[in-house]
Amino acid sequence: SRSINLAVIPGDGIGQEVVAEGLKVLSAVLPQDVKLETKEYDFGARRYHATGETLTDADLDALKKHDAILLGAIGDPSVPSGVLERGFLLKLRFAFDHHVNLRPSKLLPGVATPLAGEPQIDFVVVREGTEGPYTGNGGTIRKGTEHEVATEVSVNTAFGVERVVRDAFARAQARPRKKLALIHKNNVLTFAGHLWTNIFNKVAEEFPEVTTEYMHVDAATIYLVTQPERFDVIVTDNLFGDIITDLAAAVSGGIGVAASGNINPSGEFPSMFEPVHGSAPDIAGQGKADPTATVLSVALLLRHLGYEAEAARIDEAVSADLSERTGKPARSTSEIGDALAVRVAG
Amino acid sequence: SRSINLAVIPGDGIGQEVVAEGLKVLSAVLPQDVKLETKEYDFGARRYHATGETLTDADLDALKKHDAILLGAIGDPSVPSGVLERGFLLKLRFAFDHHVNLRPSKLLPGVATPLAGEPQIDFVVVREGTEGPYTGNGGTIRKGTEHEVATEVSVNTAFGVERVVRDAFARAQARPRKKLALIHKNNVLTFAGHLWTNIFNKVAEEFPEVTTEYMHVDAATIYLVTQPERFDVIVTDNLFGDIITDLAAAVSGGIGVAASGNINPSGEFPSMFEPVHGSAPDIAGQGKADPTATVLSVALLLRHLGYEAEAARIDEAVSADLSERTGKPARSTSEIGDALAVRVAG
Ligand SMILES: CC(C)[C@H](C(=O)O)[C@@H](O)C(=O)O
Ligand SMILES: CC(C)[C@H](C(=O)O)[C@@H](O)C(=O)O
Repeated sequence: SRSINLAVIPGDGIGQEVVAEGLKVLSAVLPQDVKLETKEYDFGARRYHATGETLTDADLDALKKHDAILLGAIGDPSVPSGVLERGFLLKLRFAFDHHVNLRPSKLLPGVATPLAGEPQIDFVVVREGTEGPYTGNGGTIRKGTEHEVATEVSVNTAFGVERVVRDAFARAQARPRKKLALIHKNNVLTFAGHLWTNIFNKVAEEFPEVTTEYMHVDAATIYLVTQPERFDVIVTDNLFGDIITDLAAAVSGGIGVAASGNINPSGEFPSMFEPVHGSAPDIAGQGKADPTATVLSVALLLRHLGYEAEAARIDEAVSADLSERTGKPARSTSEIGDALAVRVAG
Repeated sequence: SRSINLAVIPGDGIGQEVVAEGLKVLSAVLPQDVKLETKEYDFGARRYHATGETLTDADLDALKKHDAILLGAIGDPSVPSGVLERGFLLKLRFAFDHHVNLRPSKLLPGVATPLAGEPQIDFVVVREGTEGPYTGNGGTIRKGTEHEVATEVSVNTAFGVERVVRDAFARAQARPRKKLALIHKNNVLTFAGHLWTNIFNKVAEEFPEVTTEYMHVDAATIYLVTQPERFDVIVTDNLFGDIITDLAAAVSGGIGVAASGNINPSGEFPSMFEPVHGSAPDIAGQGKADPTATVLSVALLLRHLGYEAEAARIDEAVSADLSERTGKPARSTSEIGDALAVRVAG
């Protein structure tokens, strides 16, 4: 019989609330014969304040035993900026080699967008997750003086770039439009830019059916608001991917519905699924958070584990729910979760 | 008697066409007693193909003698990516210490925006121009092999950050709303992020009337499309500034109307003014380019040289021209230039 052994990290702020709904929908959608085991981990601000720890080696060993990880959100104003981001989120992405950071953007019918007209938005960003300016390389000299110098080093390897580019080509190949855009800034960041561009062009030869284009990251932000229908699959580096996926989320219904997967394609380590939004401490504990992004992250998780039919049921339930929202009074976090659970079960 | 000794760099593609209109409007707006001298320089793709040169020491010596520089656009598909950007544009910005890259965004009445509703957009981005990931630091080892490693080093100094932050505070202080946002990614790029944040907070103490906020660059892209009215003055690093000013241009009327100044505030070197758009080779030579961004760059140039009344006349002429465009047939580059020249003279 089948089973899913899931690590659950609610985290901080609204993380707790949205993860509860994600699990509710997960339980509702899974067939009877699938045994769902969950173990909750208390990472985040409280653990950090209580113990000074963000993510220990023992934690990593424990997490490693799970089939996948569901994360709510990590981060709190009481913790200095960077401590939990670098000490937990990025540490985990790097330790578990989550090199494919998958972020789909789809504007569903009936969903509000800040863009005028009726833009058609349906693309997926494959963001590199283990290199670039996110490596933590760099440093500071003469800190706090008028002669301080701080550096940040973006590290890019042929190995790291090729595997994520290859993943993106395979995804583009599997989609009806078969289009792939590389986003970088190769006219300024010429060292990294040449590496990315050369590997992109080399791998392209193996995927003759995929139509490719190159775009500078600054120009990409323009196209994302003026011609978002232009995009099908995008592959890009860690930092550019961070920036454009927030913009992509904003134009395709807001970060309330933006899901993401931090994927280790080989399966050597468990992959982690999380909403793109943060912990939103300003609305935490009030039942105001929209759990949809977490529920869609659960769909990505199921798809990754091979439960395609169940993932599709969640996607359909979310589409239906979103299309009926206009004009209705706002619902609480758990009301939205309940509605989605009913739909996926029904 | 007063005089302006201007270096003119039409450059590539539509650069030639838009600069001609910029000069037309400049001549029309200047009072009789101001002597305008211009000298044209042939930098760009043609010079590069003919001589292999992008910008020599002798060129820099010649340019240095001018009061200011007006640039059209540099870049052509026939030149490998990066050669003219690094070898001309960035070389000039660095050589002339253009550390304040000024990019105003104002959505004028009657101008189309991709955003729904009627957003109020009136802010200015102060982008650092001589540091960050733009320094060209970094390199490549094992080029072309499967073991290639390419790095890009973002260099940030207290000296460089403080002067641009100070400039931004002074600009915020001089505006009615007196708001300044620092945009960075200090939770991930912690070395550079701490330097920027600490200096920002330190300088803030000298400007108690200025309301400040900090925002991550990814979140900033969301606010730029959902709440652009939130912004008054933004200060940010070279790369983040590059990215968000293209997005800012897109939402506030398009890059057809986005002007910029590469400013050396001390006046030790001439400042350079240029439209944010590129050379657009696809429409070059057809009279289709909108010269408005160049004309607005001429206004920034005049303001920098102390011709405030003339700069304001150009801004007003552009506002009036833009507000009357809707529903009219498209005009050629020179027709728009003619119309603006008539308005500023009248
Ligand atoms: C919180 C932060 C470390 C993270 C990132 O920059 O990757 C977030 O912005 C995201 O996009 O998941
Ligand atoms: C052409 C390029 C070097 C330049 C930059 O990145 O600064 C351009 O995008 C700009 O914004 O002026």
